[in-house]
Amino acid sequence: MKKTEVIIIGVGRFAEALISELSRFPRFTLIAIDSDIKKLAEISTNVDKTFVGDASNEQFLKEIGIKNADIFVVSIGNDIQSNLLTSSILKDNFNGTVIAKAVSKRHAAILKKIGVNIVIMSDTIAARRTAISILNPILSLELSERNSELTELDGGVSILTIEALPVWENKMIKDLKIPRSISIVLIRRDKKVVIVNGLTKIEKNDRISIVGSNEELSKMLKN
Amino acid sequence: MKKTEVIIIGVGRFAEALISELSRFPRFTLIAIDSDIKKLAEISTNVDKTFVGDASNEQFLKEIGIKNADIFVVSIGNDIQSNLLTSSILKDNFNGTVIAKAVSKRHAAILKKIGVNIVIMSDTIAARRTAISILNPILSLELSERNSELTELDGGVSILTIEALPVWENKMIKDLKIPRSISIVLIRRDKKVVIVNGLTKIEKNDRISIVGSNEELSKMLKN
Repeated sequence: MKKTEVIIIGVGRFAEALISELSRFPRFTLIAIDSDIKKLAEISTNVDKTFVGDASNEQFLKEIGIKNADIFVVSIGNDIQSNLLTSSILKDNFNGTVIAKAVSKRHAAILKKIGVNIVIMSDTIAARRTAISILNPILSLELSERNSELTELDGGVSILTIEALPVWENKMIKDLKIPRSISIVLIRRDKKVVIVNGLTKIEKNDRISIVGSNEELSKMLKN
Repeated sequence: MKKTEVIIIGVGRFAEALISELSRFPRFTLIAIDSDIKKLAEISTNVDKTFVGDASNEQFLKEIGIKNADIFVVSIGNDIQSNLLTSSILKDNFNGTVIAKAVSKRHAAILKKIGVNIVIMSDTIAARRTAISILNPILSLELSERNSELTELDGGVSILTIEALPVWENKMIKDLKIPRSISIVLIRRDKKVVIVNGLTKIEKNDRISIVGSNEELSKMLKN
């Protein structure tokens, strides 16, 4: 299978975290570009190739042989001008999908106008996540110690992923004492995913994804 | 009902986004603190009260009357020293939950040692989200125009929220031609949430949350 080539331009904390996520998957070829060789050295073990240079220089980008890359991530964070120039050069000269990091709404709007496919605003994404924690203190604060995850859909409804409660073990889903408005949608068992129905039996160490309103989920956990 | 008092310390882009999320809910009293009066002015219409001053000064924090706040958010981003001092003063003198923003893993580790309840790393959260987009290009890039959301659970399984496909309208869920391994778990209809079963009929403009493997979801959309 042809690997997906991802070019990451600008190595800061965002790029580091992204590279560390993507480097776990062999289906990507990861290439990092930065003008600072020290930053490239820090992440070099997790990428396939690095280039030192100024990505806002059109000639440089054309010469290093990344023409057929599938995805470009412009993660230049502190220099808006470089971020915009680079994004614009990529859209005008290359075919890959361009993802760019924006630091403000105005910055994001310009990136969209340039034609950038996906604009990422770290602070907004993180703030939304924080707001969810604040909105659902029982679900998220107390659960942060329980090896569980909470994902808010909208309308006050969330998906909670949690280890099977001891009282659930060896019972069929239809026999659990949980409100009808709460629904078990998925079980992770031995790294495999089980799509469930009422007759599915819960086993020890199952990780269970449950959909329901935040209130009902909180109540369920307190029982 | 007693309102939840949230104190936001340090007004930058993260705080702005957080305030804008939380200000939609009348159950919060929002108070912002910053040493820069101009930054407070920018967000003042969305908060109940502001204080100008140095939050890393213990005396100042004790004097302004926020002793009984429920939640503190330390969103000081560029000055690690102030961020740590403030977080530490809050943990030692106040009872509320402390949420703090960290800019690096080391910073996060110190905040945890101080006893901060939730540590937020914006770049890491945003990078993870970006990695999901890159891992599921069909689901997330193409869908970004379709007013849909994708939430990755683990094991390659996601929850996709999408408007009802025209072919689904007025049909019962059990009669839809979708693979058995994909499961519709929730419908948002007229701002209300409907928990569904096989007999639930899909209406026009329903927003539908579907759980399944990324591959199966992609296939479903291409048909």
